[in-house]
Amino acid sequence: MSENRLRSDCPVNYLLELVGDKWSLLIIRDVLLNAKSSYGDFLASDEKIATNILANRLASLEDAGLIAKGQNSENRTKYIYSLTEKGLDLIPLFIEIILWSAKHAPLPIPEDRKEMVARAAQDKEVLAMELREHFLQGKTKIGL
Amino acid sequence: MSENRLRSDCPVNYLLELVGDKWSLLIIRDVLLNAKSSYGDFLASDEKIATNILANRLASLEDAGLIAKGQNSENRTKYIYSLTEKGLDLIPLFIEIILWSAKHAPLPIPEDRKEMVARAAQDKEVLAMELREHFLQGKTKIGL
Repeated sequence: MSENRLRSDCPVNYLLELVGDKWSLLIIRDVLLNAKSSYGDFLASDEKIATNILANRLASLEDAGLIAKGQNSENRTKYIYSLTEKGLDLIPLFIEIILWSAKHAPLPIPEDRKEMVARAAQDKEVLAMELREHFLQGKTKIGL
Repeated sequence: MSENRLRSDCPVNYLLELVGDKWSLLIIRDVLLNAKSSYGDFLASDEKIATNILANRLASLEDAGLIAKGQNSENRTKYIYSLTEKGLDLIPLFIEIILWSAKHAPLPIPEDRKEMVARAAQDKEVLAMELREHFLQGKTKIGL
């Protein structure tokens, strides 16, 4: 994203220009919270993203410096996607999204998110640090 | 938004289905941080929202229970928009957006946001409470 294409100098607008799109934020969620890293992983998510939208959003996120693309060491024709530091800095924002939805969504909190919600309500800062560490250690399952 | 139209039961997805759209979040920003409350106010923002998008997003936000529409006491043909409790609960999320952009945006922080960024960096919880109080007291200028 080139600076002079920004619609305003508002800090809120800046993030929204990069990821003010539900699909982009769901891809980041998948990398961060669901231990997903491949094109096929993202396609398989419950929200059923279309292949053309997925390809477009992955390119935008990489262009925005939020995710990085690398080669899969086991299969060099496949790419793996991970979060950059800039992307990892979105962790506190995702914690706020989870807390907000835990309070306001009409659905019960899914079983595999209950512990995360409880820990977010208890201490956001600690959870944010743990999620970052967890990601950087490359664990395949979030374990929360 | 009817519950059975949700694309998944993920709490992150829930918020994104309601406001995973840059224009919706910019309207909430305008009400919360820029003391805007009318159709004309929103139209005049730097990002230049189109009238048809604005009308559509205001209706969606009202439908989602994030904003409420009332009559302007001075001019009964005009509506004023305010945030509901559900909308006000997005304050911590906006604080995280501002902090993230203050760190990562290529632009300098606008003069009229510098104090808010400094206070967010110092104590998010206090700032969140102050923003809520400020909004509920109906001050016309944010004063931060």
